Amino acid sequence: MKLWDKGYGIDKEVNEFSTGEDYLLDRKLVRYDCLASIAHAKMLGRIGILKPREVKKLDGALRKIIRLDAKGRFTIRKEDEDCHTAIENYLIRELGQAGKKIHTARSRNDQVAVALRLYYRDELSACERLAMGFIAALKDFRSKYGDIKMPGYTHTRKAMPSSMGMWSESFAESMGDNIKLLQAAYKLVDQSPLGTGAGYGVPLKIDRALTARELGFARIQRNPIYVQNSRGKFESVIVGALSVLMFDLNKIAEDLIMFSMPEFGYFVIPRELTGGSSMMPHKKNPDVLEILRANYHLMNSYEFRIKGVIANLPSGYNRDLQLTKGPVMRSFETAENSLRVATKIMKRIKADKRRSEEGLSEEVYATERAYSLVKRGTPFRDAYKRAARRNL
Amino acid sequence: MKLWDKGYGIDKEVNEFSTGEDYLLDRKLVRYDCLASIAHAKMLGRIGILKPREVKKLDGALRKIIRLDAKGRFTIRKEDEDCHTAIENYLIRELGQAGKKIHTARSRNDQVAVALRLYYRDELSACERLAMGFIAALKDFRSKYGDIKMPGYTHTRKAMPSSMGMWSESFAESMGDNIKLLQAAYKLVDQSPLGTGAGYGVPLKIDRALTARELGFARIQRNPIYVQNSRGKFESVIVGALSVLMFDLNKIAEDLIMFSMPEFGYFVIPRELTGGSSMMPHKKNPDVLEILRANYHLMNSYEFRIKGVIANLPSGYNRDLQLTKGPVMRSFETAENSLRVATKIMKRIKADKRRSEEGLSEEVYATERAYSLVKRGTPFRDAYKRAARRNL
Amino acid sequence: MKLWDKGYGIDKEVNEFSTGEDYLLDRKLVRYDCLASIAHAKMLGRIGILKPREVKKLDGALRKIIRLDAKGRFTIRKEDEDCHTAIENYLIRELGQAGKKIHTARSRNDQVAVALRLYYRDELSACERLAMGFIAALKDFRSKYGDIKMPGYTHTRKAMPSSMGMWSESFAESMGDNIKLLQAAYKLVDQSPLGTGAGYGVPLKIDRALTARELGFARIQRNPIYVQNSRGKFESVIVGALSVLMFDLNKIAEDLIMFSMPEFGYFVIPRELTGGSSMMPHKKNPDVLEILRANYHLMNSYEFRIKGVIANLPSGYNRDLQLTKGPVMRSFETAENSLRVATKIMKRIKADKRRSEEGLSEEVYATERAYSLVKRGTPFRDAYKRAARRNL
Amino acid sequence: MKLWDKGYGIDKEVNEFSTGEDYLLDRKLVRYDCLASIAHAKMLGRIGILKPREVKKLDGALRKIIRLDAKGRFTIRKEDEDCHTAIENYLIRELGQAGKKIHTARSRNDQVAVALRLYYRDELSACERLAMGFIAALKDFRSKYGDIKMPGYTHTRKAMPSSMGMWSESFAESMGDNIKLLQAAYKLVDQSPLGTGAGYGVPLKIDRALTARELGFARIQRNPIYVQNSRGKFESVIVGALSVLMFDLNKIAEDLIMFSMPEFGYFVIPRELTGGSSMMPHKKNPDVLEILRANYHLMNSYEFRIKGVIANLPSGYNRDLQLTKGPVMRSFETAENSLRVATKIMKRIKADKRRSEEGLSEEVYATERAYSLVKRGTPFRDAYKRAARRNL
Repeated sequence: MKLWDKGYGIDKEVNEFSTGEDYLLDRKLVRYDCLASIAHAKMLGRIGILKPREVKKLDGALRKIIRLDAKGRFTIRKEDEDCHTAIENYLIRELGQAGKKIHTARSRNDQVAVALRLYYRDELSACERLAMGFIAALKDFRSKYGDIKMPGYTHTRKAMPSSMGMWSESFAESMGDNIKLLQAAYKLVDQSPLGTGAGYGVPLKIDRALTARELGFARIQRNPIYVQNSRGKFESVIVGALSVLMFDLNKIAEDLIMFSMPEFGYFVIPRELTGGSSMMPHKKNPDVLEILRANYHLMNSYEFRIKGVIANLPSGYNRDLQLTKGPVMRSFETAENSLRVATKIMKRIKADKRRSEEGLSEEVYATERAYSLVKRGTPFRDAYKRAARRNL
Repeated sequence: MKLWDKGYGIDKEVNEFSTGEDYLLDRKLVRYDCLASIAHAKMLGRIGILKPREVKKLDGALRKIIRLDAKGRFTIRKEDEDCHTAIENYLIRELGQAGKKIHTARSRNDQVAVALRLYYRDELSACERLAMGFIAALKDFRSKYGDIKMPGYTHTRKAMPSSMGMWSESFAESMGDNIKLLQAAYKLVDQSPLGTGAGYGVPLKIDRALTARELGFARIQRNPIYVQNSRGKFESVIVGALSVLMFDLNKIAEDLIMFSMPEFGYFVIPRELTGGSSMMPHKKNPDVLEILRANYHLMNSYEFRIKGVIANLPSGYNRDLQLTKGPVMRSFETAENSLRVATKIMKRIKADKRRSEEGLSEEVYATERAYSLVKRGTPFRDAYKRAARRNL
Repeated sequence: MKLWDKGYGIDKEVNEFSTGEDYLLDRKLVRYDCLASIAHAKMLGRIGILKPREVKKLDGALRKIIRLDAKGRFTIRKEDEDCHTAIENYLIRELGQAGKKIHTARSRNDQVAVALRLYYRDELSACERLAMGFIAALKDFRSKYGDIKMPGYTHTRKAMPSSMGMWSESFAESMGDNIKLLQAAYKLVDQSPLGTGAGYGVPLKIDRALTARELGFARIQRNPIYVQNSRGKFESVIVGALSVLMFDLNKIAEDLIMFSMPEFGYFVIPRELTGGSSMMPHKKNPDVLEILRANYHLMNSYEFRIKGVIANLPSGYNRDLQLTKGPVMRSFETAENSLRVATKIMKRIKADKRRSEEGLSEEVYATERAYSLVKRGTPFRDAYKRAARRNL
Repeated sequence: MKLWDKGYGIDKEVNEFSTGEDYLLDRKLVRYDCLASIAHAKMLGRIGILKPREVKKLDGALRKIIRLDAKGRFTIRKEDEDCHTAIENYLIRELGQAGKKIHTARSRNDQVAVALRLYYRDELSACERLAMGFIAALKDFRSKYGDIKMPGYTHTRKAMPSSMGMWSESFAESMGDNIKLLQAAYKLVDQSPLGTGAGYGVPLKIDRALTARELGFARIQRNPIYVQNSRGKFESVIVGALSVLMFDLNKIAEDLIMFSMPEFGYFVIPRELTGGSSMMPHKKNPDVLEILRANYHLMNSYEFRIKGVIANLPSGYNRDLQLTKGPVMRSFETAENSLRVATKIMKRIKADKRRSEEGLSEEVYATERAYSLVKRGTPFRDAYKRAARRNL
């Protein structure tokens, strides 16, 4: 039964079209909605809407849902629309009156907002940990292979001498910057929306500081309209940060695909990480790197979807915003899986010293030749021209 | 067991990351892969690779799979990777030798290509039928309400007199153009890729015309490399056409959301098509129209994903292309659901004659006033200036 | 002076912000607006709004503007906002009364629409011609180098034997399909919008068939609202088609960049088509191919800009639509320059027979080895496994 | 003359295609390239490559270029390709030997990187100042009109009582968050790339800390490959932040367009900020707000262009990256103009107290009615159902 059931029938096709896959996506939010409801019940107790006994019963029932959910035993049925409805219905079924009171002084809109932000904080932290793990794997790679020289390329043409060390460090330093972007996104979402109702406050005096404190938020998001208007906005910042992170994985995948080609042979992918062909018996393909590379585009499309969906809408909640939930959840999933797999690859892939150093053919030293003239006093531009003559 | 199993183990995490959700998406392709395999077997019989008895057995087993699949009883397991593997494994299990021969003179790559095109043809036809149904609903609306006058807007400001008839016809004519775009996409994909192997042909003399004819393709796609390079390209054209179609639904949704606001009241949405609020008892929200509107952005993000994934890749199949399968399938699903729902809305929504005609306030006639001067001989630009003075 | 000047001042900053770069972009439309105005004047003569003498004077003045414009001597000043204003102001200045009548029975909105469509037709035809030229260059390349064998790749790994002929034909066949997409876009825009006013018709009985015929349109776009609603929609179809075409150039650029690397050496780029480095004297970089590759993304961003700008807008003209003009014009420019340059590259680039054929290393023949067993009666899947053992 | 001229001719068409509009865009970078060159010359003096006299001469000449440029009198010719070439050529012309030495220990690649970052810092600061100005205008609006009540909407339907104060504060708080995103972008780019050459260091011992200090960078970007790989990445973060900021302007524009419609009348746009129609004498259109709204999509397309261009490229500079320069420059321009215009609008627009308060029709108080039951002890869900009956 819907929270907003008013006794008249609703067209089933239209209702399913409108609620979409929310009842599936919301599996990830059950825990967070319960945590927020526990804080909310405590606050309702403090302001006298709930009796202490009711707060306790609600607290107990909500913790039970969390435990059920952890074991995969709390179900959200299609008819329930979303986790918020399933949970309120459960509480009313189990607790009667107390259950009917839990929705006092809040709206599903601020419930969604608070549950999502608790979820985002956890996921952003998980991404940060995985990014650190990737950096660690790069450093391990560096300590094993860092001294191997290899040609550095610009314009996909040999440029100057580089090394496995310089190459792997570039990604470690870059990932360090990505972590800062994740942290900036974290800071943005770490503000409590709870207590802003449907976007215009609630007609009761409540204690927003209490719930914010209980849920560990760094600050309160003051303006109720802004709470609703930040739906999609915050998501676009999160997915934007993840997309930048995925850009680095796109590039390392591209490097590894190219430089593990037998024509180069600088890297060797162990065969258990490769895929085969149904027709060509000899193939050992870098499928995993290709999917890693392609996932960057997946992320961009999620970001772009969010940025499109939220456009040209007036202030206040609009149902369009619901379509931002799927992409942000899938973005986390994609980024986390990609980081895990990229870490495994960096742990397993091998650098081939002989092939890498054979790659340092004569032209890679052209710049050094020009500089040897510079050191003997020739102005750089003249030295350049002289060295250039050799490679016409 | 994978088609390319060579006896050494494959990292499970890496393999699952690479195959992704293919085993789920491919449920839609079982039927089409079987149809293509039936044609392929017939051709192998014709060129003497299969004995007549083997062709018959394969034909029977493949038709059995089609029947099983229609009842939801043909399973693709995660370990099978995709429908092509599941089907070949089934055939080998059931038929032995004949099953081991079915993959002669083809690659999974051209199997995927041919199955997808058969699927695209069916889905594009379904979209066309649904678009025709939407036009029919618009015409019904027109015959009920077409004569009602309403203000026409430009810049979201009243401009000149319009009517429910002119309004609904605009979408009918527009959807007619969309159908032509669907047909152009259909023509593009209606060429047989079967027989091009992994992108460089097969080392056997085969009869591509036979399979093309059997499968009802309008023509043969000659070049094997182009067959692979059109993966993603064709999909981007399909989703591009669907996105244009969804643009029209986005606009009609926007019109209906705005003009069904009580402040305008030109349209009335029956309450069984509305949604409510968990907190505000009076709300009747146009959720269904908001999701319809938002789905346009979904479609754009799918198109953009495909166009991103396929970029900067050298010729020949690259595993990145696998990530074009999900978006095109979801695009069809979204477009078809949206057309169905939009058709239902147009059948149910009401025009409010009184409110619409009340909307025709004085300024809507300013242009006509200028033209009454024109008719009496004043040059238009002078007539305009005179009429303008009245509305300063 | 603006067409809509009513005697009160307009904020300069706001006005410049709103009109943007229209006065620059419109240089490309002067000719087309004049052609449409000539047809419009003729029609106004036919229905008795203009005297024969006035029609003649307008025709003469408009042809004079076309001649001036061809020599770059017709100026659109910033204060004029756009070409339509500049032209009407010119006509009033030169002809007085007749000039003041030219805007009878039309709006700037349908002027823009008709001028753009005449322009689109010319540009789409130009693209088609350039695409044919590119195909011709591919065929020349094929006749010079087609017989050279080279390895075919999948997953950026050697797969099976290919040839310069198969490679170049793949792009020729693909470009043939692109031309059909250009033609579908052409058909879509080849309908006359003239006579629909600001989107709700004009309060005069006019002859739309006459102007459509004069301007060579294949049909009339009936519904005035649809005329306005197709602004941006048509543009998205055009740029979508150009983006598909650019996808092919992206791929050929990628192939040429990779396979002209000295590590492969299959192609040789003549040095006059390369760029150098400010610091590294030896560099010969494929800059031109990199820009060609990157231009695909430019095109995608133009398409998605249009698709974003037009979203979530109610029916009828909205000023947002103005921002679709720049991207479509730049798309034509980019596509045409890219086709020209790609054609030149295909004419100049060389295939290196020795390096290409050296690329056909042993593993490229693994599939053929499996098929030699097939020919002797081994079922394909067993033959595959046997051949696979050799390449573990 | 190009920096990399080696005495053989370069195809003109190909060269112009490759350099594109760089010579125009670079007008904005002349000042920054000179500042970086001054620091670089000082460093070259310190390590003994330049004599003190040469450092002084270079310093003088570079400051002269800055002065010339400020007056619009330093030209970059098309043949010069970019500002870096124009400046080096100028220095060689004016100073001879010293000019030929300025390029020692650097590449055009790190010159571009450092000049862009100095430019980004200035532009990000400018955006921050303009965002503060916009907040100030919102606060002024609030002090004038904050107490006026107005209906709050969800789903474009009246929801609960709001006020001009709550509405304007929502944008002020939101813009405050945007400023933090601008600062995060600033921090990211505030690291010195100078001294990393073409991406693989320079074959001389140089003092990167000195140049970083001279140019006021907060830190040094260590890894030379990362410097090149951050091209496009940093730009995508900047434009991403600007896009989020523009999202807020998109929404305020949407609100103002809708609620200034005479049908609502909550806001009044002064006529000097409106535009007119060429055909309809009465029109006063919110063109400026429509362009403001549309500019969000412009920004998104710039972000996604950058994110597309940089995809699937191997490490090290690739010429594709050049195409990230235009979009980031235009993004700054668009964001700054939009903020300026939005600020002006908020200063000039009026709230209409009577119309706003008339908007508070009966249904807006439905939630309060439910809460009056809650206050008297009815559980919320029961109170909701009772209140709902009244609005069926």
